[in-house]
Amino acid sequence: MTLFDDASSQDPVPEPPHQDGLVRVRMTVAYDGSGFHGFAPQPGGIRTVGGVLAGAVERVLRLPAPPAVTCAGRTDAGVHAWGQVAHVDLPSEGRAGPLDLGDLHRRLVKLLAPAVVVREIGLAPDSWDARRSACSRSYRYRVLNRAVPDPFLHGQVWLVETPLDLPAMRLACDPLIGEHDFASFCRKDNGGSLVRRVLDAAWVDLGDGLLRFDITATSFCQQMVRAIVGTLVDVGIGRRRAGEVTGILRAADRSEAGAVAPPGGLCLWEVGYPSE
Amino acid sequence: MTLFDDASSQDPVPEPPHQDGLVRVRMTVAYDGSGFHGFAPQPGGIRTVGGVLAGAVERVLRLPAPPAVTCAGRTDAGVHAWGQVAHVDLPSEGRAGPLDLGDLHRRLVKLLAPAVVVREIGLAPDSWDARRSACSRSYRYRVLNRAVPDPFLHGQVWLVETPLDLPAMRLACDPLIGEHDFASFCRKDNGGSLVRRVLDAAWVDLGDGLLRFDITATSFCQQMVRAIVGTLVDVGIGRRRAGEVTGILRAADRSEAGAVAPPGGLCLWEVGYPSE
Repeated sequence: MTLFDDASSQDPVPEPPHQDGLVRVRMTVAYDGSGFHGFAPQPGGIRTVGGVLAGAVERVLRLPAPPAVTCAGRTDAGVHAWGQVAHVDLPSEGRAGPLDLGDLHRRLVKLLAPAVVVREIGLAPDSWDARRSACSRSYRYRVLNRAVPDPFLHGQVWLVETPLDLPAMRLACDPLIGEHDFASFCRKDNGGSLVRRVLDAAWVDLGDGLLRFDITATSFCQQMVRAIVGTLVDVGIGRRRAGEVTGILRAADRSEAGAVAPPGGLCLWEVGYPSE
Repeated sequence: MTLFDDASSQDPVPEPPHQDGLVRVRMTVAYDGSGFHGFAPQPGGIRTVGGVLAGAVERVLRLPAPPAVTCAGRTDAGVHAWGQVAHVDLPSEGRAGPLDLGDLHRRLVKLLAPAVVVREIGLAPDSWDARRSACSRSYRYRVLNRAVPDPFLHGQVWLVETPLDLPAMRLACDPLIGEHDFASFCRKDNGGSLVRRVLDAAWVDLGDGLLRFDITATSFCQQMVRAIVGTLVDVGIGRRRAGEVTGILRAADRSEAGAVAPPGGLCLWEVGYPSE
């Protein structure tokens, strides 16, 4: 396991032993990541989405300590989510009485507003795990391709002023689909495999210069989507040719691909689970 | 003329005399109104959209003082705009050389980012006036009608948790169309007429609980759209009947209608001019 990797099947960490009196609670969480240092809780008062979520659960249920929060995709600092999925194990009987998920939901919505919103909450089987049970993650990256920005999309798009060649960017993303070693598009990690299976990748033209890159994979390694977008935008600007992407993949060398696109354009859109 | 009224034809203020060496410059301006005390420049360091716009123009063109900015719709504190239209009179020859609108545009975009964006800039005839020449204003008000908020719409919608009866709200807005005395829906002013002509008013269902109220009138008086939305939402909640709206209009008494809806849901969408 690598610190930031959201891989599931490759993950050798054993399932924690089931504790009596605890139930597994699943949440779907949306957040504006602008003010957070990513999802994963960190020590030293660093503000993370998982940290504030755990703190809010602790407070509502009057727990002795914040619960461990496991998420499907460990988003980086500044990255947003619409459909992040997480689980926590909570006492079915607490100091405040039996666990009432409806009440917990309402209180979390109030405590975490406006940047973090628990969209849904429910019980899950003990064997279900937000991270390990996930079979796919879908990310969306938005590029605003015009000279003049939009005050309502600030911090949620990458403003690229140079006109982009969308057909070339579409050609360039095709070779990414399938199972490849994505070492050219990932932050170096401590020796884990960077082979990933991309299920779909496509550019959507939303009009008025707003472009969206949608990508789904079984899992991603760190900074993979942003490095891919950075490289595809290089193609759109004319700095690279669409035909180069296959060679960049084969090189398995991070220095071959483009710089990472800014985090604000990226959003973890949806997490897929086998039964759904 | 009343301080906040955006009326045009009723306006008795004479055209300022044309000054030699000045050209009239027209701008289309979008802004996130959250951090501003409305558009109209105010004394005492109060942050307004018009104030920061005038200050930026002064700085770019090295003018001796901020120019007067005239806008089509004097939006209140916290109200947004996508298509606000404004004019300023600028020297055709300045300290920095002849007026270069392309250069001014690029610099204003940089100086005013991210909350204020000058979308378009161009020359206008001296006889054209952003406010007096306007023949219509279109506003949009968004209501998010669900229990759970959306982090990406924070400050841009009114979150109403009670389920709304949209057909009743649609019935209730029909009597508003046409020429009426809108005294029941306007802040008291110093004796000016509150007769306005509403050209269109309709609710649009955007899905997932997001509703949008679109209203166009020749002009509006202060807080008129927000008082109308507050009253229509009262109908949607069941506090009032749709049939009451005609009586509320006829009463010409502000206490008859509902409270004003919060400013963050409102956006000045577009301003119409006769030749366009």
